[in-house]
Amino acid sequence: MDLSVFFAGTGGSVPSARRGLPGLLLRRGGDAVLFDCGEGTQRQLVRSVGLTDMSHVFLTHFHADHWLGLPGMLKSFELRDRDKPLTVLGPPGTRKLLESMRFVYGRLKYPFEIRELDPHEAVRFDDWAITPFAVAHRGPVSFGYAIVEDVRRGRFDVELAASLGVAEGPDFGRLERGETVNGVTREQVMGPDRPGRKIVLSGDTSPCEALRVAAHQADVLVCEATFAEEEAERAALTRHSTARQAAEIARDAEVRMLALTHLSSRYAGGEIRDEGRAVFERTVVPRDFDTIDVPFAEKGEPELVRWDAERAPA
Amino acid sequence: MDLSVFFAGTGGSVPSARRGLPGLLLRRGGDAVLFDCGEGTQRQLVRSVGLTDMSHVFLTHFHADHWLGLPGMLKSFELRDRDKPLTVLGPPGTRKLLESMRFVYGRLKYPFEIRELDPHEAVRFDDWAITPFAVAHRGPVSFGYAIVEDVRRGRFDVELAASLGVAEGPDFGRLERGETVNGVTREQVMGPDRPGRKIVLSGDTSPCEALRVAAHQADVLVCEATFAEEEAERAALTRHSTARQAAEIARDAEVRMLALTHLSSRYAGGEIRDEGRAVFERTVVPRDFDTIDVPFAEKGEPELVRWDAERAPA
Repeated sequence: MDLSVFFAGTGGSVPSARRGLPGLLLRRGGDAVLFDCGEGTQRQLVRSVGLTDMSHVFLTHFHADHWLGLPGMLKSFELRDRDKPLTVLGPPGTRKLLESMRFVYGRLKYPFEIRELDPHEAVRFDDWAITPFAVAHRGPVSFGYAIVEDVRRGRFDVELAASLGVAEGPDFGRLERGETVNGVTREQVMGPDRPGRKIVLSGDTSPCEALRVAAHQADVLVCEATFAEEEAERAALTRHSTARQAAEIARDAEVRMLALTHLSSRYAGGEIRDEGRAVFERTVVPRDFDTIDVPFAEKGEPELVRWDAERAPA
Repeated sequence: MDLSVFFAGTGGSVPSARRGLPGLLLRRGGDAVLFDCGEGTQRQLVRSVGLTDMSHVFLTHFHADHWLGLPGMLKSFELRDRDKPLTVLGPPGTRKLLESMRFVYGRLKYPFEIRELDPHEAVRFDDWAITPFAVAHRGPVSFGYAIVEDVRRGRFDVELAASLGVAEGPDFGRLERGETVNGVTREQVMGPDRPGRKIVLSGDTSPCEALRVAAHQADVLVCEATFAEEEAERAALTRHSTARQAAEIARDAEVRMLALTHLSSRYAGGEIRDEGRAVFERTVVPRDFDTIDVPFAEKGEPELVRWDAERAPA
C-alpha cells in the first residue's frame, strides 16, 4: 500500500515566488486527504497533481494563510460538478469559520459536512486513522495531526506450518484465527505483529511536549520551521519554531525523517536545511510539489522525491 | 509617459494550470492600480513584477473569483510593513464585503480606505481619471472601467512664433496662455489639442451598449471572452461574452487593440483568439504575466509583450 505526502505549498504567512501557502496532500492507496488549504492551494493542485478527489480537508487552525483557499476550492468543486462527498474537519470553531464564508461558496450540490474535532478524537478510515493533538501556537486552539496505520498482523509462514503437519486449506485459516491445529499454535507459525506507518504533522507551533510525544518514532515528521535560529526571539514571540528546534524534536522523538515546511519568505531553504541537519541528519526541506514516499519500515527509508516539472500539465 | 496593462491572471471562475484568476495591473509613470484581485493574485504578482506599491484596487463586481485574493493581500501588505495608503473602490456593497472579511486582515496599520462608486463617478489622478460604468452581468451591479488621460495641449511651434516676430521668453508664455502678442494668436503657433489615451476594461458582462459606448475609439479594450461561440447559450445564461461578441464590440467601437481575457478553463487560448480575429483582426489573447504597452497614437500601435520567464524572480 503506497503512502505519501505531497507538498502543495511550503511557505508560511506570505507567499513567495518559490513557495505557496500551506497545503499538504496525504495519499494512501485510493484515499486522498488535504491538510490546510492556504490561498492558492486549488491552483497549486491544478498545476501539479490535479484537483484531486480528496475526501477530507483537515484544518490545523484558523490563521488565514491556512484556510483562505478553502472557500474558493469548495466553489470550484461545485463548478466542476463534483458529486463525491467532502468533509471539512478542524478544531472547535471550524463550523463558524466555514459558515461565515458561506456567501462565497453558497449551497453546494455535493454532500458537504463540517465536523469539529476535540483533541485526540480519532477519525477512522479503513485500517488507519487521523488523530488531532493540541499544539502551542497563538490563538485559542491549534492542532497537529497524527496519521497512523493499524498494526499489521505478522506473516503466516506457510512452509513452516506444512512442515509441522498442518495441511494447506481450512486449517491454515483456523491457525491464523488463533485455534490450535494438530498441536500447532498461531505463535509458532506467524511472525510478530508489525507496526503500521506513522506520519505526524506539527501544524503551526512552538516546540512543545505534545508534538514530541505524538511524533515518537514516526516515519515522517512534517514540522514547521518558520524561522532560523537567528530569529529565535521572533519565533518565540509568534509561537513558531526554528529549524533547530524542529530538528531537536525529531531527534528526541527518534523519527525516521524530518521534513521542514512553512518557511518564512525570507529564507530560500538551504539555510533552514543546514540548520536542521546540524542537529538531525535526515532532515529535508521540500519545495512546492515535492513528494515524500513512505514505505513500510522493512521495505526502506522515507524518500523525498523532487517534483519533475516535465510532468506538469500544459 | 509610459502606460501599460499587466495581466496577473487571465482565467475566469476556476483557475487552470495556465491561467490564474482575474487581476490586471495598470501602470502609468509611477502610478500602479490593480483591477480585481482573484484568489492567488498576490502570488501571481510576487512571481512576476513583484508585490507592487499599487495605490488603488478597483473591484468590478463581487463574484468570488474577482475579489477573494484581496483579504490575503491586505494582510500580506501589513506583514510586510506597508506604510503607503491603499484605497479599495468598487460598486455599492464594496464596504460590506470588505468589512465581512475584516476578521482575516484585522486592523491595518497603513492608511486604508474603502470607497463605493456610483456609475460614472470619476476617480481623478493627476492628469488622468478612472471612471466606472455599469455593465450587464448577473447580480446587482457590475462595473467596467474606463481609464482616460486628459487631453494634451497642442505643440507650441517655437520657430514659427519667432518668425512671426514674437521674441523668445515671457511672450511665449503669454501666447500659450491665450494672449495675443504683436498681433499673433495662440491658434497660429500651437497645434490642435491631442486626445489622451484610453483603456477600457469590460469587467464581466454580456455584450451591452454601455460597453460599446465606453470603448469608443479606445486604444485598448480589455474584454472578457469567457466562452467561444459554441457555448453562446451558456454565455447568455451566465451573462458572459463569447470571443465573437467581444470582437464585434471592438470592431463597432473602433478600438485600436482588443485583448480577450477571463477565459473559461476549457480553452487553451488559440480558439478564442481565432474566433476574435475572424471579426476583428487586432485581437490578442494575453497569457498570465503578459503586458500590453500603450503608446500615444502618434508614436505607434499598442503592443502585446509576452512575458519572459527568464526575468522571473528566483
